[in-house]
Amino acid sequence: MKDTRLTALLGIELPILQAPMAGVQGSALALAVCRAGGLGALPCAMLTPEMLRAELETLAAETTRPWNLNFFCHVPPAPAPARETHWRARLAPYYAEYDIDPAGIPAGPGRAPFSAALADLIEAWRPPVVSFHFGLPAPALLTRVKGWGARVLASATSVAEARWLEAHGADVIIAQGLEAGGHRGMFLETDLSTQLGSLALVPQVVQAVNVPVVAAGGIADAAGVAAALALGAAGVQVGTAYLLCPEATTSPLHRAALQGPEAAHTALTHLFTGRPARGIVNRLMRELGPMGAEPPAFPLATAAVTPLRTAAEARGSTDFTPLWCGQNAQGCQNIAAETLTRQLAGGLPRH
Amino acid sequence: MKDTRLTALLGIELPILQAPMAGVQGSALALAVCRAGGLGALPCAMLTPEMLRAELETLAAETTRPWNLNFFCHVPPAPAPARETHWRARLAPYYAEYDIDPAGIPAGPGRAPFSAALADLIEAWRPPVVSFHFGLPAPALLTRVKGWGARVLASATSVAEARWLEAHGADVIIAQGLEAGGHRGMFLETDLSTQLGSLALVPQVVQAVNVPVVAAGGIADAAGVAAALALGAAGVQVGTAYLLCPEATTSPLHRAALQGPEAAHTALTHLFTGRPARGIVNRLMRELGPMGAEPPAFPLATAAVTPLRTAAEARGSTDFTPLWCGQNAQGCQNIAAETLTRQLAGGLPRH
Repeated sequence: MKDTRLTALLGIELPILQAPMAGVQGSALALAVCRAGGLGALPCAMLTPEMLRAELETLAAETTRPWNLNFFCHVPPAPAPARETHWRARLAPYYAEYDIDPAGIPAGPGRAPFSAALADLIEAWRPPVVSFHFGLPAPALLTRVKGWGARVLASATSVAEARWLEAHGADVIIAQGLEAGGHRGMFLETDLSTQLGSLALVPQVVQAVNVPVVAAGGIADAAGVAAALALGAAGVQVGTAYLLCPEATTSPLHRAALQGPEAAHTALTHLFTGRPARGIVNRLMRELGPMGAEPPAFPLATAAVTPLRTAAEARGSTDFTPLWCGQNAQGCQNIAAETLTRQLAGGLPRH
Repeated sequence: MKDTRLTALLGIELPILQAPMAGVQGSALALAVCRAGGLGALPCAMLTPEMLRAELETLAAETTRPWNLNFFCHVPPAPAPARETHWRARLAPYYAEYDIDPAGIPAGPGRAPFSAALADLIEAWRPPVVSFHFGLPAPALLTRVKGWGARVLASATSVAEARWLEAHGADVIIAQGLEAGGHRGMFLETDLSTQLGSLALVPQVVQAVNVPVVAAGGIADAAGVAAALALGAAGVQVGTAYLLCPEATTSPLHRAALQGPEAAHTALTHLFTGRPARGIVNRLMRELGPMGAEPPAFPLATAAVTPLRTAAEARGSTDFTPLWCGQNAQGCQNIAAETLTRQLAGGLPRH
């Protein structure tokens, strides 16, 4: 039985969504997925206005199919100098190891939430699909986005979050299972023990809401797509499997880690940004504990780690690199994203 | 495409295994599942020899279909008086609250691992299927079990554990996803971050071993069964969904919790036994932290909590009760286990 609610709503051929992955992809990956008939996504949270404008021009020029812009909806934290000082003290031995002068490290947010200014910037392109992580923007801003005809997707990590998102205007709920790589979309939940594996989360969200549900987390191949649809999902969102595609901008070090034995062990960590996100366990996570050390609130934690990351990567080391990755890297292949999307579509009914 | 490897190997009609759940079920539940064509299981770890003998007589008298005996394979820990003292000190405020004299609490293991004496006891009944949690028994003992024709099932929580179990003689691997209720079968893994959601674990185990793989964790209905099979599992093991069946011996307090809003929030906790097991979050877990407080090693932690549990339950409280439950209690129904098994079978291909 083919569920066409999602494809009809979004105007896509295949109910396969490419997960927006800030820092490892741009419009090239999104366009490749769109060409295959899926929904390509552009992660916007780490782009400057100039970069975002350039990417929008590329998307508009290269395809007439729908694409998805993704934004974060976190509330920027108040500066907490004591916590920042404590955090930098925890990192001091590493600064010493790499001859980094901590006094020279700029503070800086790194990731800006969706805003009226961003709405101004993107409105001219009338993005057909806009997705949000960490909740939804304020009602007036959401109304504006929906006003130009955009379909709104948002991530839920629990049944309570799914119900909240539906009540506040999301057109589609992405049920993000615990297996997913990158940032947990948690916005009502704060306790990691509330986070459910996809096989438990998806059917509970499907039962709780009336809008179409997209399954995310652990889906790496056609079999995973078939399983997600069996659970009642109207479509899937796949991230990790695309990381080795040539259209992704995944660094060579990250690519090597995804193909090595270390990819078998990921963990949720807040060390790199201040919010829990799943990545391959590396030295910083092992030594401080992936959820230890009380870094500053998201996204402030990033600034202090960045120079360590840069210095270590220059020596060929991923000791301080966030190696975002889900719990199932088995689907990662160095093949065109268009081919991968078509392979995933093999798990759809009657396709 | 119907995968008949598992049903042929175990001599069952349906590839649906009822998860052995010590403390909440005996032969009655196992027999009901057998009647429906699935594989019923008797959890043996908490039975005295007399109780085990009586249950075996019942199973042998009531069915000619195969059934499964389940045992634990932990290495009994050395007594650690300092840790026990520390643990009882952490519980002291609760003892005071319930007027319990800590000096009067007996130590005691609570759960014995599989042994030559247990093999002597069960051999006369030639159990057709024997399953193990926390690894496998020593090679000579395993050879004895297989020698009377029993098929051996064992739980893996990671790809490494699955490979180890296959190399050491398991005929079937149960891939226990993080969603599962009760004790994690971890025996090589010690770090909880190695534990994968079913949607990630099952396909990776299927690819890693040649023996049939049974998916466990989060499967609550026919849709879950279909999803597990789509991932390559040859069958499923279902536990939580059976807890409300009249044939289970689940206590009224536990039944109420499974049907209340609290069932939506489970966590892995070592507070009740010393090993991580998933249960509904209750007062003890909230106040000490589910993985906090350093209780004695499995199964020694149990003794000190038992009198608190007894006293609280007498007042109608589950504050100190292990309310084992998986991450998906949606499938719990107060219906005959035979009916539930047939409902689950609705997710099988061409059935």
